Amino acid sequence: MIGAGQLARMTWQAAVSLDVGLHVLAASPLDPAVSAGAPYTLGSTDDPDALARAATEGDVVTFDHELVPQGQLRRLVDDGHLLRPQPAALELAQDKLAARTTFQQMGIAVPAFTPVSRPQDVHDFAERHGWPLVLKARRGGYDGRGVHLVEGPAAVDSMSLDTRGGSPAWLAEEHLELAAELAVVVARRPSGQLASYPCVQTHQVDGLCRELVMPADVPAHVGRQAVAMAESLVAGIDASGICAVELFLTGDGRLLLNEIATRPHNSGHVTIEACRTSQFEQHLRAVLDWPLGSTAMVTPAAATVNLIGSGRDGEPWRGLAAALAEEQASIHLYGKQSRPERKIGHVTVLADDRLSALERARAAAAQLVAG
Amino acid sequence: MIGAGQLARMTWQAAVSLDVGLHVLAASPLDPAVSAGAPYTLGSTDDPDALARAATEGDVVTFDHELVPQGQLRRLVDDGHLLRPQPAALELAQDKLAARTTFQQMGIAVPAFTPVSRPQDVHDFAERHGWPLVLKARRGGYDGRGVHLVEGPAAVDSMSLDTRGGSPAWLAEEHLELAAELAVVVARRPSGQLASYPCVQTHQVDGLCRELVMPADVPAHVGRQAVAMAESLVAGIDASGICAVELFLTGDGRLLLNEIATRPHNSGHVTIEACRTSQFEQHLRAVLDWPLGSTAMVTPAAATVNLIGSGRDGEPWRGLAAALAEEQASIHLYGKQSRPERKIGHVTVLADDRLSALERARAAAAQLVAG
Repeated sequence: MIGAGQLARMTWQAAVSLDVGLHVLAASPLDPAVSAGAPYTLGSTDDPDALARAATEGDVVTFDHELVPQGQLRRLVDDGHLLRPQPAALELAQDKLAARTTFQQMGIAVPAFTPVSRPQDVHDFAERHGWPLVLKARRGGYDGRGVHLVEGPAAVDSMSLDTRGGSPAWLAEEHLELAAELAVVVARRPSGQLASYPCVQTHQVDGLCRELVMPADVPAHVGRQAVAMAESLVAGIDASGICAVELFLTGDGRLLLNEIATRPHNSGHVTIEACRTSQFEQHLRAVLDWPLGSTAMVTPAAATVNLIGSGRDGEPWRGLAAALAEEQASIHLYGKQSRPERKIGHVTVLADDRLSALERARAAAAQLVAG
Repeated sequence: MIGAGQLARMTWQAAVSLDVGLHVLAASPLDPAVSAGAPYTLGSTDDPDALARAATEGDVVTFDHELVPQGQLRRLVDDGHLLRPQPAALELAQDKLAARTTFQQMGIAVPAFTPVSRPQDVHDFAERHGWPLVLKARRGGYDGRGVHLVEGPAAVDSMSLDTRGGSPAWLAEEHLELAAELAVVVARRPSGQLASYPCVQTHQVDGLCRELVMPADVPAHVGRQAVAMAESLVAGIDASGICAVELFLTGDGRLLLNEIATRPHNSGHVTIEACRTSQFEQHLRAVLDWPLGSTAMVTPAAATVNLIGSGRDGEPWRGLAAALAEEQASIHLYGKQSRPERKIGHVTVLADDRLSALERARAAAAQLVAG
């Protein structure tokens, strides 16, 4: 697995149960997967030599992020390594413009968008779709970084839209009134078997996922439609492993595909406790082309609250015993130093209804981080 | 944690979630907890120096087995280490005679028994309780080793009953017609908080636990009585951490306490999937004197089937993909070489009823070991 963050850490926990020999490429011996005991190669994911050394440790190469440049992914393929997912699917998690264009060509509903190479492109888009609009960096944005709500024309002219090389570095997107943000985690084997988890509803603040509930609090037919769209997409792009598919439900009832991650994802952490098979074990099964596990829920409802660091000293450990007093809380700490806006853990609670689960998870989380 | 077997391995997985700094004393770098990534001290649990070195790695010393001699436990205490459980409670898991005597003095029902220092003791016992009877080694027996069903007087005279030192090395016990073998896993904090898991029903073959179901298939009042007996015992002996309490339900409806283990136990593996908090996380919470987690079931029924090695080549890995095709099966492999009569993993299935869970777990297990 390329990368050794919390996704690799939780994948390692799953690998131990199946006695799968997971090896990670870690930037530091303090990385979350390394402190969890995963065998590792030390090196940067930008370094072709480090990638090549790590890749030789396994039969299959998979990823805990989408930061490896396409050129280096292709080189690994050329060197005979089996990448799951393959570079073309990963590209759709790296390049929002390529993703939107591909999804649209597949006949999947997406928000209105246009590539932006120069400020005039934004003004032209605004003439058709009005203000405000959303500008998104084509590459590299995550957790709300690289996303800007643009109120009007003056704001565009004050932004430095990188137009080097003539290739669009941004896309403009219609501003949507959202009824809900949804996500569907889908596992797919290279041989084609698919398994989807129930649709979750996420609550983002400044683009950072703060909390979610499973199942989403939307009409059943909307949840089914979200799963169908996600499965159609995942099969269409020939993905393998876990894919997290994020969707918008608009106030006027449209379901639109936002973006995808081709790896275990924050919106799937809830599956550790809430479902028969966690997304982490499922990812291992999928990339190894082994039969997928049941995705059925073991509870009527569940909620996960992310622990977002404040940078406060002793966070989150100082509050751990107090948080455990919420006896329904399942606490996951990633072994990361607390820093502002950094995800350092999460709390999941199972309950008979979403609100009870959410309230209890929030109460435990409040003991762990300043919030 | 003293010992690095599968119990330490699964405790390590739980420690990663809570970011607890678990350190193990391992006999070999191939031990299950070490291959799962737990930091370790290499050494024998018989070696005072190794014990002392390992103990200095933590604030609390706990155990994945009961093999450390009392003298060495007392020395650790004298050196200022905090042992949980403390030596007096561990003694009851080491010495069946001390345990039976203590339980009886506490007013807890146990099978009729007597210490055996010489063959005549067995004959005397048989006069009161009849043949057949059961002879059990006072120390060191596990998984059926050290337990003998004795059909009549001739068999006694052909056995070599070790009588060195005059201290009884065996106990004789009435032979019981069993309706069921039960176990209750209880967690207790040093400060007194108790939490019990639902009573399980185990199925032993030649003294080795082959499979179990949760909850036990006994009348509700019997399950409640078993939990009450287990809790009374665990509080009475001032145990801390997980205690597994094994009981006999006789054909004539008597509930008798058999023996205890003062550590996470095979009969609690089912809690990983079937309950809100696994016995492994619960053990960590308990020995650290942190609030205990919910022991509620997330399923109407669950079954666990142990993977008992046959020594066949490639076992259990060769059958893993086939076993995963049972999509309800949660598979745990311990990273141990297969040897006859060795526990090398387990399979748990959640279902609406015990029999469905058991059948599916057996089907998956049959793919993994020759059985």
